[in-house]
Amino acid sequence: MPPPIPPDPTLLAGGCSGPASLRPLLDTVLTALADGAAERCGPLPAGGPDAPEARFGGTILPAQGTGAHEALGALVHALARGAADPADPHCVAHLHCPPLAVAAAADLAASALNPSLDSWDQAPAASALEAQVTAELAALVHPSGPAPDALVTTGGTESNLLGVLLARERHSARLRVVCGANAHHSTARATWLLGLHPPVNVPTPHGVLDPALVRAAVEGLPPGAHALVVATAGTTDSGAIDPLPALADLVAEQRRHRPTSLHVDAAYGGPLLLSPRHRTLLAGVERAETVTLDLHKLGWQPIAAGLLTVPDRTALIPLAHRADYLNADDDTEAGLPDLLGRSLRTTRRADVLKIAVTLRALGRAGLAALLDDVLAAARRLARLVADEPRLTLHAEPAISTVLFRPAGADDARVAAIRRQLLDDGATVLGRAWALDGAGHRRLWLKATLLNPRVLESDLTALLKLVLERAEAPLPVPASGSAPQPAVRRAALRSTPSLLSPSLPDQRKPSDDRP
Amino acid sequence: MPPPIPPDPTLLAGGCSGPASLRPLLDTVLTALADGAAERCGPLPAGGPDAPEARFGGTILPAQGTGAHEALGALVHALARGAADPADPHCVAHLHCPPLAVAAAADLAASALNPSLDSWDQAPAASALEAQVTAELAALVHPSGPAPDALVTTGGTESNLLGVLLARERHSARLRVVCGANAHHSTARATWLLGLHPPVNVPTPHGVLDPALVRAAVEGLPPGAHALVVATAGTTDSGAIDPLPALADLVAEQRRHRPTSLHVDAAYGGPLLLSPRHRTLLAGVERAETVTLDLHKLGWQPIAAGLLTVPDRTALIPLAHRADYLNADDDTEAGLPDLLGRSLRTTRRADVLKIAVTLRALGRAGLAALLDDVLAAARRLARLVADEPRLTLHAEPAISTVLFRPAGADDARVAAIRRQLLDDGATVLGRAWALDGAGHRRLWLKATLLNPRVLESDLTALLKLVLERAEAPLPVPASGSAPQPAVRRAALRSTPSLLSPSLPDQRKPSDDRP
Repeated sequence: MPPPIPPDPTLLAGGCSGPASLRPLLDTVLTALADGAAERCGPLPAGGPDAPEARFGGTILPAQGTGAHEALGALVHALARGAADPADPHCVAHLHCPPLAVAAAADLAASALNPSLDSWDQAPAASALEAQVTAELAALVHPSGPAPDALVTTGGTESNLLGVLLARERHSARLRVVCGANAHHSTARATWLLGLHPPVNVPTPHGVLDPALVRAAVEGLPPGAHALVVATAGTTDSGAIDPLPALADLVAEQRRHRPTSLHVDAAYGGPLLLSPRHRTLLAGVERAETVTLDLHKLGWQPIAAGLLTVPDRTALIPLAHRADYLNADDDTEAGLPDLLGRSLRTTRRADVLKIAVTLRALGRAGLAALLDDVLAAARRLARLVADEPRLTLHAEPAISTVLFRPAGADDARVAAIRRQLLDDGATVLGRAWALDGAGHRRLWLKATLLNPRVLESDLTALLKLVLERAEAPLPVPASGSAPQPAVRRAALRSTPSLLSPSLPDQRKPSDDRP
Repeated sequence: MPPPIPPDPTLLAGGCSGPASLRPLLDTVLTALADGAAERCGPLPAGGPDAPEARFGGTILPAQGTGAHEALGALVHALARGAADPADPHCVAHLHCPPLAVAAAADLAASALNPSLDSWDQAPAASALEAQVTAELAALVHPSGPAPDALVTTGGTESNLLGVLLARERHSARLRVVCGANAHHSTARATWLLGLHPPVNVPTPHGVLDPALVRAAVEGLPPGAHALVVATAGTTDSGAIDPLPALADLVAEQRRHRPTSLHVDAAYGGPLLLSPRHRTLLAGVERAETVTLDLHKLGWQPIAAGLLTVPDRTALIPLAHRADYLNADDDTEAGLPDLLGRSLRTTRRADVLKIAVTLRALGRAGLAALLDDVLAAARRLARLVADEPRLTLHAEPAISTVLFRPAGADDARVAAIRRQLLDDGATVLGRAWALDGAGHRRLWLKATLLNPRVLESDLTALLKLVLERAEAPLPVPASGSAPQPAVRRAALRSTPSLLSPSLPDQRKPSDDRP
């Protein structure tokens, strides 16, 4: 006879007894997170995708369960040990932020209570909270809008999809999207998904849209076509902000000739509206029909925390949708709120809770201080790069992205250095193409600073790691002496799977950190 | 001078110090969850959308923050007090499950570590875990598929969208979707989103697709049209399962005449594959090109836990997508996994962690026991209804949904009874239209049982509450004596907002519970 399943794993998270059931399990999670982080001892596991820290073995679905504590301990520990942790000051590749503890703690309540925002009778208070948060955040973007409102999304990609979808519904399938080469890839993917023509791409050699080129692109559309101009406030590659006032003027002017709308993807830059010092960078955003925000970037939220704002909630009417079991006419008439038109999803997690808790805990002043700290850190990093003759700075950061490259390295070498740093487990940098001072398109290393707790010493150490790699010969796989990561990786390949919690730690802190 | 912001709210959830920062905040969350549940003392707050328990007042974004503990305490408490809690045995309206504590605890680790599954360097171990879980779950659905794989989605709606999208890409815009009137509303919404013709709707007066009518619908498509037949394994209204083997045969037969595919929406019924006792209900599902699963329904996961399975991963190639900063060709060639084609989202939460921990903790045997318990509870409820002459049972439950109605009540009265029960805060029932024994389309009360801990006494009490409401005159708003909810609701409207944590509890347990 197999041993009986321990009773623990079937306890529920909700109800009056849920918190007591959760408490010992959360202890296990916190211990596993701490142990995993200590063993990783860096921004990500060394050894690349083949390293045991980055893999799982054995079945995930055994015939008999292992119990709640064993499963939580083993898998959370493995996940933490094999994470790319954005809370590490050297994990700066992407718009991938370190979440605030207060936001992550709030997120637990959303998981435990499990409200679903597709009908009032699954989320009475959660839906009221969402209505309030979305109205307040939308008013920040569109302060003079008649009835600002916002939808909560899974991120910038869904927000951009909704922006293009709402434009399609306003303008019909005659819609043509005009965007820059600097626009997020989700804009083109949205047109594909929605069955529209691919976007007209305006070149952005200098990283931002040139209004004259946008005008030419709109004027060059076929007769009868309607236009949606998509601008970006904080590009993924460099954090650049398109000239929003000039683009809003241009859209207003083009409306005399053809129906034309403006969508601004402010997934990255949007939160700057909370900073009295930096909010002028976003001037003009309030004139857009739709705006993408994303608080899991410069808002320190766990994923997902996207928003799409509109100046007037009537703009959302095209999403209205009816399903008798969720919003029957007679129920709506009797006063039950109709939530189904507030998303393309049906079942929908209360991602709004962590946002609300964070806004209330920090207030405008607290959020502005974090934003200002992050932007100041990016300026410090740019200064350190500019002062280092072995490195080339692309430009002063527009928000908090710093592009730089080892002087004299060609593009393939820059890409290889980035991969080698990942393999070392030493630093997680991104990459971006941009013109150099001589007008040549080059590949750059990208540091996207989002961590408000980064220190000047972290920035100095990061550049030191890059310089060491840039000046060292790249290791040759399957040859060389012991300390080379590629060799260590091969040696570790034969270790038992991560799912054996007794696996001894193969790495020492001194292996990878200067 | 305003008081300084306390330092707490800016602590990070990740890194080596994250767990220590989280611990006291989680204590605050658990206390607030327990207090809120105790004060609610029932499946949802009484008084409907106007009750103070279901509302929020004041600003969510103050000039100065209130600190982490105050914000967490106030908002989580308010959310718990105003929740419709699926862990309460009388909260049975929707496919809205009570999550397991072990799954909610695991979800905290996803929030704290914040891996993003759009590139390997944001999620080394999380992406490896996802690859393993999706392959194993897909193999459960398609045991003889050449290379079963699955995508993790936000739920059945996104899975159905992906099913229709993959069909569009296989078949081109000549695709016509053929589905039953019993299909989930997301099928029609997907065709709208994707720019396809609306589905051809096949009537399902008896709740399931009739293969002869589906054949007629496919044969009636315009020449040159390709077909996607969408079947359902567990309808939202009644849990009915379409005749999958016959429909798979029909699709195979129609392929001789025109390109034809099959998508099965098993969002509700899919997990029955884990039950040796009930898995035969899903026979035929393995023959579909794409299958929707959703473990936040009959899988006790916090939202979101959707999946789309395919028998062969090459079916997912149409989603391939490139963005240099996430999956540059040279990085992919150098061995960095390419994750971008595994979702329509870009940034993507590690929803897979809670799924993996649950599967490992319970194993097949533990999950099968929970499934069997839920299905047995539904049969018990149906028996209790059938034995009660004042109630009419629609039919034996196919999965765990029981439709019933007070004998003699007309449809408007059934709808009003449901709303009154919500207003009482006593029980959360759903509603569905279906034929009665005489062949008339009637509105039914719907109990969707998903809680494996429901007791026979809970079921008896639920029916007692329904009978009491069915036999009492409905309260007349703004008249009558004190105990009537409508009057209490009006009286409470003037109480201070929930955001004042000092607000005394206005409800007593005896107000609403028998």
